Amino acid sequence: MSSQEAFRIEYDTFGELKVPSDKYYGAQTVRSTMNFKIGGVSERMPVQVIRAFGILKRAAAEVNQDYGLDPKIAKAIVQAANEVAEGKLNDHFPLVVWQTGSGTQTNMNVNEVISNRAIEIMGGTLGSKKPVHPNDHVNKSQSSNDTFPTAMHIAAAQEVNEVLLPGLKKLQNALEGKSKEFSQIIKIGRTHTQDAVPLTLGQEFSGYVQQIKYGVARIESTMPRVYQLAAGGTAVGTGLNTRIGFAEKVAAKVAELTGLPFVTAPNKFEALAAHDALVELSGAMNTVACSLMKIANDIRFLGSGPRSGLGELILPENEPGSSIMPGKVNPTQCEAVTMVAAQVMGNHVAVTVGGSNGHFELNVFKPMMIKNVLNSARLLGDVCVSFTDNCVVGIQANTDRINKLMNESLMLVTALNPHIGYDKAAKIAKTAHKEGTTLKEAAIKLGFLTSDQFDQWVKPKDMLGPQ
Amino acid sequence: MSSQEAFRIEYDTFGELKVPSDKYYGAQTVRSTMNFKIGGVSERMPVQVIRAFGILKRAAAEVNQDYGLDPKIAKAIVQAANEVAEGKLNDHFPLVVWQTGSGTQTNMNVNEVISNRAIEIMGGTLGSKKPVHPNDHVNKSQSSNDTFPTAMHIAAAQEVNEVLLPGLKKLQNALEGKSKEFSQIIKIGRTHTQDAVPLTLGQEFSGYVQQIKYGVARIESTMPRVYQLAAGGTAVGTGLNTRIGFAEKVAAKVAELTGLPFVTAPNKFEALAAHDALVELSGAMNTVACSLMKIANDIRFLGSGPRSGLGELILPENEPGSSIMPGKVNPTQCEAVTMVAAQVMGNHVAVTVGGSNGHFELNVFKPMMIKNVLNSARLLGDVCVSFTDNCVVGIQANTDRINKLMNESLMLVTALNPHIGYDKAAKIAKTAHKEGTTLKEAAIKLGFLTSDQFDQWVKPKDMLGPQ
Amino acid sequence: MSSQEAFRIEYDTFGELKVPSDKYYGAQTVRSTMNFKIGGVSERMPVQVIRAFGILKRAAAEVNQDYGLDPKIAKAIVQAANEVAEGKLNDHFPLVVWQTGSGTQTNMNVNEVISNRAIEIMGGTLGSKKPVHPNDHVNKSQSSNDTFPTAMHIAAAQEVNEVLLPGLKKLQNALEGKSKEFSQIIKIGRTHTQDAVPLTLGQEFSGYVQQIKYGVARIESTMPRVYQLAAGGTAVGTGLNTRIGFAEKVAAKVAELTGLPFVTAPNKFEALAAHDALVELSGAMNTVACSLMKIANDIRFLGSGPRSGLGELILPENEPGSSIMPGKVNPTQCEAVTMVAAQVMGNHVAVTVGGSNGHFELNVFKPMMIKNVLNSARLLGDVCVSFTDNCVVGIQANTDRINKLMNESLMLVTALNPHIGYDKAAKIAKTAHKEGTTLKEAAIKLGFLTSDQFDQWVKPKDMLGPQ
Amino acid sequence: MSSQEAFRIEYDTFGELKVPSDKYYGAQTVRSTMNFKIGGVSERMPVQVIRAFGILKRAAAEVNQDYGLDPKIAKAIVQAANEVAEGKLNDHFPLVVWQTGSGTQTNMNVNEVISNRAIEIMGGTLGSKKPVHPNDHVNKSQSSNDTFPTAMHIAAAQEVNEVLLPGLKKLQNALEGKSKEFSQIIKIGRTHTQDAVPLTLGQEFSGYVQQIKYGVARIESTMPRVYQLAAGGTAVGTGLNTRIGFAEKVAAKVAELTGLPFVTAPNKFEALAAHDALVELSGAMNTVACSLMKIANDIRFLGSGPRSGLGELILPENEPGSSIMPGKVNPTQCEAVTMVAAQVMGNHVAVTVGGSNGHFELNVFKPMMIKNVLNSARLLGDVCVSFTDNCVVGIQANTDRINKLMNESLMLVTALNPHIGYDKAAKIAKTAHKEGTTLKEAAIKLGFLTSDQFDQWVKPKDMLGPQ
Repeated sequence: MSSQEAFRIEYDTFGELKVPSDKYYGAQTVRSTMNFKIGGVSERMPVQVIRAFGILKRAAAEVNQDYGLDPKIAKAIVQAANEVAEGKLNDHFPLVVWQTGSGTQTNMNVNEVISNRAIEIMGGTLGSKKPVHPNDHVNKSQSSNDTFPTAMHIAAAQEVNEVLLPGLKKLQNALEGKSKEFSQIIKIGRTHTQDAVPLTLGQEFSGYVQQIKYGVARIESTMPRVYQLAAGGTAVGTGLNTRIGFAEKVAAKVAELTGLPFVTAPNKFEALAAHDALVELSGAMNTVACSLMKIANDIRFLGSGPRSGLGELILPENEPGSSIMPGKVNPTQCEAVTMVAAQVMGNHVAVTVGGSNGHFELNVFKPMMIKNVLNSARLLGDVCVSFTDNCVVGIQANTDRINKLMNESLMLVTALNPHIGYDKAAKIAKTAHKEGTTLKEAAIKLGFLTSDQFDQWVKPKDMLGPQ
Repeated sequence: MSSQEAFRIEYDTFGELKVPSDKYYGAQTVRSTMNFKIGGVSERMPVQVIRAFGILKRAAAEVNQDYGLDPKIAKAIVQAANEVAEGKLNDHFPLVVWQTGSGTQTNMNVNEVISNRAIEIMGGTLGSKKPVHPNDHVNKSQSSNDTFPTAMHIAAAQEVNEVLLPGLKKLQNALEGKSKEFSQIIKIGRTHTQDAVPLTLGQEFSGYVQQIKYGVARIESTMPRVYQLAAGGTAVGTGLNTRIGFAEKVAAKVAELTGLPFVTAPNKFEALAAHDALVELSGAMNTVACSLMKIANDIRFLGSGPRSGLGELILPENEPGSSIMPGKVNPTQCEAVTMVAAQVMGNHVAVTVGGSNGHFELNVFKPMMIKNVLNSARLLGDVCVSFTDNCVVGIQANTDRINKLMNESLMLVTALNPHIGYDKAAKIAKTAHKEGTTLKEAAIKLGFLTSDQFDQWVKPKDMLGPQ
Repeated sequence: MSSQEAFRIEYDTFGELKVPSDKYYGAQTVRSTMNFKIGGVSERMPVQVIRAFGILKRAAAEVNQDYGLDPKIAKAIVQAANEVAEGKLNDHFPLVVWQTGSGTQTNMNVNEVISNRAIEIMGGTLGSKKPVHPNDHVNKSQSSNDTFPTAMHIAAAQEVNEVLLPGLKKLQNALEGKSKEFSQIIKIGRTHTQDAVPLTLGQEFSGYVQQIKYGVARIESTMPRVYQLAAGGTAVGTGLNTRIGFAEKVAAKVAELTGLPFVTAPNKFEALAAHDALVELSGAMNTVACSLMKIANDIRFLGSGPRSGLGELILPENEPGSSIMPGKVNPTQCEAVTMVAAQVMGNHVAVTVGGSNGHFELNVFKPMMIKNVLNSARLLGDVCVSFTDNCVVGIQANTDRINKLMNESLMLVTALNPHIGYDKAAKIAKTAHKEGTTLKEAAIKLGFLTSDQFDQWVKPKDMLGPQ
Repeated sequence: MSSQEAFRIEYDTFGELKVPSDKYYGAQTVRSTMNFKIGGVSERMPVQVIRAFGILKRAAAEVNQDYGLDPKIAKAIVQAANEVAEGKLNDHFPLVVWQTGSGTQTNMNVNEVISNRAIEIMGGTLGSKKPVHPNDHVNKSQSSNDTFPTAMHIAAAQEVNEVLLPGLKKLQNALEGKSKEFSQIIKIGRTHTQDAVPLTLGQEFSGYVQQIKYGVARIESTMPRVYQLAAGGTAVGTGLNTRIGFAEKVAAKVAELTGLPFVTAPNKFEALAAHDALVELSGAMNTVACSLMKIANDIRFLGSGPRSGLGELILPENEPGSSIMPGKVNPTQCEAVTMVAAQVMGNHVAVTVGGSNGHFELNVFKPMMIKNVLNSARLLGDVCVSFTDNCVVGIQANTDRINKLMNESLMLVTALNPHIGYDKAAKIAKTAHKEGTTLKEAAIKLGFLTSDQFDQWVKPKDMLGPQ
């Protein structure tokens, strides 16, 4: 890179710029790196968006060929776009999220990379824009304003289907397995964090199963609107400079390439100017975050100890917990889950603020919005897998402890209500509490019932459902 | 109230308390007013929750009668509960939202009011708990832990159906009317707040219609889970002290009384310990808030002026806008809309934080959560009606202004691309911009085309869709 | 109200309207009630804002007299404004928050009430606008655009000083008392919710003290900017139609009337167009909410039980905890605290969204912003008092339980590190854990040390600080 | 890397693991990469945290030497830690944010890297833990629980001082320059987005200056608590296993190394269990985000056009704005600013949720919290620089347009109030509005004043301040 050959000259309508010789991108990409030095490498446009653009550009090229684009050019674009879709050219996308709010520069980055790669494939000179022009050919019948939201929806839908939903379902299955495994273990319930009447550990876990199951349903119920693509709307939603049928064909092609039920958005004005579909999806993920926070909190509290906590669950030991306290094991997977949950709640607010601030024909918070949506989907999906593999499947019930707590519980007194009345029952509970005895001891001492009666009436097993 | 007759003595398990003679509530309610002096009158439990409790208590009494409750007592409870449901006894519910997180005290407030009113109906003495006991009869087969979430869901579902959805649909219809009315008015589009290619004003409004239409769909897609009732779960979700079938019958009765498709929740553990369904509903309302923020912002900017703004829309004048500037009219309805939108986004975070912090068998952020959900539903519904009636239906297009801006626009040059190429088109636009002339003047001056060609090629009417 | 005398006719520049005879407000107020039917009575403009307006209007009248306003009129305005400031006329302010975003209608509501009341004082006819005109006299040298933000700052500063800070300081004192009371009680520490090395209960509470103490500092550090008043900026910040010196004199007068260090805002453009000072204050309250959430969570978990929880604290019993479970007591004050915390976090987002969306010379989210700021201040202040009085002061240490848990703890093994090394210490801990024995038993069994050595080396008392 | 020599074997208390030969990290780091496959490379612990750890570890080694650590070992640690602080070893920190919530694994990653590098310096064998042990030497007198929060504060303080505050001050200066440059340009004001009375463009910009100036003050007012370091608290805040004076000396050393006024935290229990200081800092950044959103929105709206917008400002043209619309230029820097603002608001909620959920002696949302705080500081600082350089400094006033709008304005009529009264003034404004004429024409036509009187009374120059 030390010689002058390390750069070539490319130009855009603002003038010439030096482009690194080993990169496919062109002048507009370089210009963006100069104008938006914000956040550095870790703030780059998510690769999922780049790959989604690859899919879209391939689909558009194929449809454009139907409408008259030179098949040789189309073929080269398809091949180059495929490479983008497969992530082979990730190094050629240096732009950060914090650029123009329409994502125009990333669209041009894609157009430039694909055109130069296609030129290379066809034996041309990089940067010559011949025979494959980034605007006239790669971006044909398109505008940043419709391609970027299309890529947003493709990327979001793929991340949901490939990472988020599988992660949730895996966790649901694992929790379901535990719920069955624990179905006969009767334990004390806790309301207001205080002792309450019993339930089975399986019942407790069944609540978690239901939360995750509904989480899947929540995500899925938002997807119909995510599967709608803006492509074909071009600059303001009218579809100027496209052809009748282009929108529908591109959506069908994208559906074919991804195996997901994409369709063209029925109203392109909404599809460019608002990103309510992503706010909605983010809202569903926010709900899932609440579920996960609850479940992970429960599991770490139920597994707290080993001596001075609740101690009902034994969580897998995955790593040394402390450099100072020998033998300490921490619920680290639960902590990753709850941190992710907090992040998703924060991401959701960012998406909401961005989603509410579109103006006229275009929302210009696009890169920020998709970054956060993808981040939430990825983190939630990944953390579900990590939590399942490294914690949930290995959870054991500490049955000795569970039995002990359950049998000592004063709230079992509730079972006496129908036999001796609420007031006497209360007296027994308060006496036992005050004197530190068992309920049975207090009951007999107070003369309200016999030992046999107690054993007959106070059966946790009979307290697990309606009669 | 000056005499000693102004109070009666009631008691709970903690002792005796003075209760105002003219109130139906009892000792536990009074105790709560003493222990929770937080926020004052404006922070009272929303009446929608109280009324929902009336419905639930009536349903429970009717089902309890099936299971053996004395029909005379049941009848009196039903009558009293009905009065609660109809809002006739609102003055008897003084408790604030900021009480126990399970809403226990409001449940007891309801039990006390209904039992005392039922006692009165049956000719008994207020406060005697005979012949209608607040716990044994009014609360029979119930616990605060399942009744409060049941009342939450009933109240939320009713507010959604009675206020939110009708408001949204009314707005959708009004916007749809405007979209049709404006279907022939061609105007300049704006992206990045900058001049762009044209669209019709009707197309622009069609985007708003789509947003609201989807808003309705979003709300509706969350309702299946809101229609699930916790009743029958009692203390921890097991249904201890209820009867088999109670849960299903109560849900059916509530459905009958409300005309809404309530069913019993398939998993009561989830229904008590998590309120994900309300977080989800709140998330949908948050999306609607984004839509409304966008629409109201557009309308006020398009209506800005009268002389120094965009001035494309003429908004109804509803009130004097300024005490200092004569003749000033402000887009006040838009401002109410956007303020409500901000509030709903804030409420959503409160609901999210509460929803994520349940522990074990019970979420104890219940009163706070339902307060915010109801507030969002009510404000959104009301503001849609106000916005529709006082703004949207009266919006007029300022066609002179619209035509002027559209015809002066430099972005019409886009239509020349296919004829003279992007580069020459750009040169025309830049020349016109620099010299302050029309595109046509610049085009002819540059010698790129004739006057006739310009007229033939630059037709905004032909720029409104794909070809 | 059945006769026609129940109304009088008033007018504004939009025409005539019927005004209830028993109300001081006029036509613009009535018009607002017709145009903004949003949310109902519970959504009225907070009385704190109304009372702050009373203070401002009195101050303005006194200053206007200096600049030439007829002393008789000024005197009547001052008297009427005082009644508003004292809350005597609260029934005359029916407007909701969801009105014009500048609060113009509330400013006019105030102007109308004060002018009519002043007219009454001077023996005139209500609604005649003579001899006291709502605009020309009551609103003299003012605009809604500067009076409303002035009232916002006065109201916020008063609520902070009268409710929020006293509440926080009361709680700080109570926690400080407990920290001292518990200074000799050695207990097990918990990190990651798991057993850790010991500390004193007093040390644990000292962390809470520090949080609240810093909370006070945080609130106070934002106040310099809240003490800046917009009055004198009139319509756009230039001060058109005021007199030189008016702004400074009004601020000084308000400072005198309130006893708070108000000054005139150095830049009125910022003071009208942005409400960053309230976003900042809200941010400080958001931090306090985090502190309170942490403290209340700790206290309820430490007080969980009575048999199956951590049980280290005994919390005051304030009310029956359950209608179904005899003897159950719940940490209800903690629940009120955490619900308030969640609400404050939500309010903060609403304030943030509103604060970010000002345009040009005016932010038009004013009523919404101040509603949320006041709500947060009030709820936080009130809940601190309630929490202190009904929970904190009555907290007792369950020393038996604390000692038991501390002595059983495996983490005391940490003290052996310097004597026998980390590895052997770990072996002892793991053996004791596995076999369910004490550390001492395991240590001796493994032959790593003698009973005497154990007693000498493992002294919790020596583990409470650096050496 | 293809041969078996590419790995070495290291171990922790859980067993042996393969470590890449070319990395300095050890077994615990590898174990974390196996247990936390969440989010991938872009989710790595921010390098600012790693570098802050380098500073802390160096400081601790130097202090430990004072307390007896072998000077040779101390020297090697200092050298290795320095390399970490200088960012030379960034490739050796592969762990993601989504790990244990105390950041234990990153602390161990640092300990491992420094010990292995120090071993290398001293000529030992990597992985042998001799002569420099990661725990016994590098982590001496420390715990993850106090080092991680110390690193958090160091990293946050540095990012604030090196990126955020310089960025804000740069922007403040640029805006101040523009405010002066525009001080004589009189323009129409806008309230409610509607025409209002005039002000100078310089006055308008002075409001922005004030916002940013206060933003700096806001950030600075939170720093005293960020400058407090947890080091010396070790596991639970007591300082077990440290020496008296260690905490103070480490803080002093860090202050010396960084040039920032760090001190030891007065209460270590608060410093470990809560991160209110970061919530507070995040709240200040959230306020700054609101300011920036307001300013950037104003500038893009004032610069909207070129033909159909407000057009009062001419913004620098930095890149081609559209691939489809020739000559289009967009306010892309404003868009980056507003996207960053939305992100910061979202980050703030994540920080808030994490900050509120600490339990007992430790908050375990540490990595998530610092990630978001650093992200906000960096993005805000960077975007201020980008916005300043690429937009603000190049803003020009479009004086022709500004004059035209100002002179056509109907709101200048306000100046006639004192001369002909509000009612006649209103009639003039309404006539001019209705008939599309100038105020002067309408005034003369209505016979309210002469042409000379109009010119004498309606002078925008006289409307810019109090009289």
